[in-house]
Amino acid sequence: MRMVDLIQKKRDGAELSTEEIKFIIQGYTNDEIPDYQMSAFCMAVFFKGMTDKECADLTMAMVESGDQIDLSAIEGIKVDKHSTGGVGDTTTLVLGPLVAALGVPVAKMSGRGLGHTGGTIDKLESVPGFHVEIENEQFVQLVNQKKLAVIGQSGNLTPADKRLYSLRDVTATVNSIPLIASSIMSKKIAAGADAIVLDVKTGAGAFMKSLEGSMSLAKAMVKIGNQVGRRTMAVISDMSQPLGYAIGNALEVKEAIDTLRGEGPEDLTELCLTLGSYMVFLGGKADSLEEAKEKLNEVLKTGKAIDTFKTFLLAQGGDPSVVDDPSKLPQASFVFELEAKEDGYVEELVADSIGTAAMWLGAGRATKESEIDLAVGLVLRKKIGDSVKKGESLVTIYSNFENVENVKAKLYDSIRIAQTEVAKPKLIYGEVKE
Amino acid sequence: MRMVDLIQKKRDGAELSTEEIKFIIQGYTNDEIPDYQMSAFCMAVFFKGMTDKECADLTMAMVESGDQIDLSAIEGIKVDKHSTGGVGDTTTLVLGPLVAALGVPVAKMSGRGLGHTGGTIDKLESVPGFHVEIENEQFVQLVNQKKLAVIGQSGNLTPADKRLYSLRDVTATVNSIPLIASSIMSKKIAAGADAIVLDVKTGAGAFMKSLEGSMSLAKAMVKIGNQVGRRTMAVISDMSQPLGYAIGNALEVKEAIDTLRGEGPEDLTELCLTLGSYMVFLGGKADSLEEAKEKLNEVLKTGKAIDTFKTFLLAQGGDPSVVDDPSKLPQASFVFELEAKEDGYVEELVADSIGTAAMWLGAGRATKESEIDLAVGLVLRKKIGDSVKKGESLVTIYSNFENVENVKAKLYDSIRIAQTEVAKPKLIYGEVKE
Repeated sequence: MRMVDLIQKKRDGAELSTEEIKFIIQGYTNDEIPDYQMSAFCMAVFFKGMTDKECADLTMAMVESGDQIDLSAIEGIKVDKHSTGGVGDTTTLVLGPLVAALGVPVAKMSGRGLGHTGGTIDKLESVPGFHVEIENEQFVQLVNQKKLAVIGQSGNLTPADKRLYSLRDVTATVNSIPLIASSIMSKKIAAGADAIVLDVKTGAGAFMKSLEGSMSLAKAMVKIGNQVGRRTMAVISDMSQPLGYAIGNALEVKEAIDTLRGEGPEDLTELCLTLGSYMVFLGGKADSLEEAKEKLNEVLKTGKAIDTFKTFLLAQGGDPSVVDDPSKLPQASFVFELEAKEDGYVEELVADSIGTAAMWLGAGRATKESEIDLAVGLVLRKKIGDSVKKGESLVTIYSNFENVENVKAKLYDSIRIAQTEVAKPKLIYGEVKE
Repeated sequence: MRMVDLIQKKRDGAELSTEEIKFIIQGYTNDEIPDYQMSAFCMAVFFKGMTDKECADLTMAMVESGDQIDLSAIEGIKVDKHSTGGVGDTTTLVLGPLVAALGVPVAKMSGRGLGHTGGTIDKLESVPGFHVEIENEQFVQLVNQKKLAVIGQSGNLTPADKRLYSLRDVTATVNSIPLIASSIMSKKIAAGADAIVLDVKTGAGAFMKSLEGSMSLAKAMVKIGNQVGRRTMAVISDMSQPLGYAIGNALEVKEAIDTLRGEGPEDLTELCLTLGSYMVFLGGKADSLEEAKEKLNEVLKTGKAIDTFKTFLLAQGGDPSVVDDPSKLPQASFVFELEAKEDGYVEELVADSIGTAAMWLGAGRATKESEIDLAVGLVLRKKIGDSVKKGESLVTIYSNFENVENVKAKLYDSIRIAQTEVAKPKLIYGEVKE
């Protein structure tokens, strides 16, 4: 088999066999296939696409390119959730305790990563004492006992995907649905998921700006999952503005606590109940999505969700009293309000640049070396469709710098006020169940 | 400017500016743009094509990537000819003396190269004493005095094209008309041509198998030439079978001598008259193509063409008496006939594999290190459409090996005999004059 022939085959629109895709990914991982052939291949895929079978084969070839986490010692169906990125996305913090409260095992492997705010581990570390440095055995034991534990990512998962992603990033081949779908799915499968719930964001602040693109991506991923024996479902959710109100580490933990008490932002709560119902259903703890949602509403009401969160924090060294007294979370030295300059209705909240403003405060990492300030960030006071009066606060800024003029300017640039009424955006645009 | 943005621009179908194309080719030549970005770019060009302006810009950027030959000391319009490859193509040997006899300066820079037979220099070296190791000054002087001289290629011409071609070869991006056209044209322009005549082969033995593809390539090259101030015309000629009869170095020199005497194979003669008339017209030595053709017929008849060939050989140390006594050319030790196994009509002569058979005899180089045997090769006795009787010779094999069973088997595989009459293929399929 020669790579040049396989590039040509794809270029000419033919379907590659399982063996051919394995040859490509193994060869690339072992440095037998050079970057210049792989990038030409990716560009051919950009134009010619991949069949469902090819996508599934590519996913599994990437899974097999590195270590695979074995979660078989954990009882029950391990359901993982993935959101395709966005700003102020607190769903992971809420969903863990929410579905664990119904007995769905959540064995979360998480990273720190780059972005507007920290990763899930960074956020949880704003709880005093909480840590993820636990042994694998203890991790398994905790999930079996408490149904929820979080550990830092270890092992060399999907090295082919990591290398391929870096290559695609500099060769204008990122934006290909088969390549995006197999990249995401390979990571989830290598991390040991039995079933997968996907939260595909759509709109201005999402990676996929168009609903059509988001829907295609969701369908591609659900097909891959179901073809390789991992039941997968997807929700297309709005990212025309940040989800919830908080953007920042401790601020998002506080928002998660509010939500787990049933007092969170409406959009965050609704999305978590929807994604949670899929997780509970796929985890075998309800016979239908409707029943799952009812049960989730119940654990919010009865306090079982928030209790599960406390138990989880305690088990990993965290101080559970933050739940009742969030002032024990890291606090910023300065609090400023971004005052509206005119009356009107919020028409646009540019998620990306609001995220960037949070990063300037120190809430996220621009490079691997950046230090995160867990206390700082933003809390939106108005969302799209809300009416606003001149002088009212649009955003509360939590900072450890006294001068936040650049952040304020960025935020003013990110928020557009209209003179006439604006409709609130839809939250959930679609669902893909099979 | 970032290469990734230019790849994306091409991927999305936009036109690149002159500066952007210069940036790509200069960056690639200087090792600032890596192969993996260039191959993704080539694949995007494969799918999206290039506008006429982009093709011209790419051509000139490649010309400027290395040395450019200055032929300004040579009087008159320097017209170069290029054939896009094929088997048994003796046109260059014939055309030089033919048009030089009418005063068109032919300053031929040639290489040795790989292939079924040697390059033009190898072929000419079968004339005892002939050599191309002459100084540039002498080369210029010879062309001014005798209108024809041949020198080995020197200098670093179009290094971007050389590197790009190697990359395209392993990334399934060879077969893109804008890339092929700019590659060929950049080499001719860097070699100093004022005007260019193209002989684009079409059919089974050609690089471009389809007439449509050959026509598109011809049009693309003619457009490039005329855009960058080099008058260019093209002929689409048949390569469904080898041109002429001879395939081999000394054998082709003998065939060229026959043709320059007006006694050559019909197809080779006709093609040389057509290409030659373009060269004479573009070289300003006739006011129309018709007049040019008449004049060429005259130099064949009067013996001026063959005399020009003798003068040329003598000027570069060669023995001109080979023209009158071709037995002074290298002679093979063994001559075999490939006898027809049945009566019928020649239906197919697979040019590629006939060429391979000649290479097996030692007529060409498979690798740079191979030694060429100038004496050996093949002479076709029948061409497509000819009738044949069982036992008649199809091909004469000139060999320095006593055992040529493998060559015979290869030739039998390359020749198909039909039971019913077969039409002779057309020789010239089209012309592109502007």
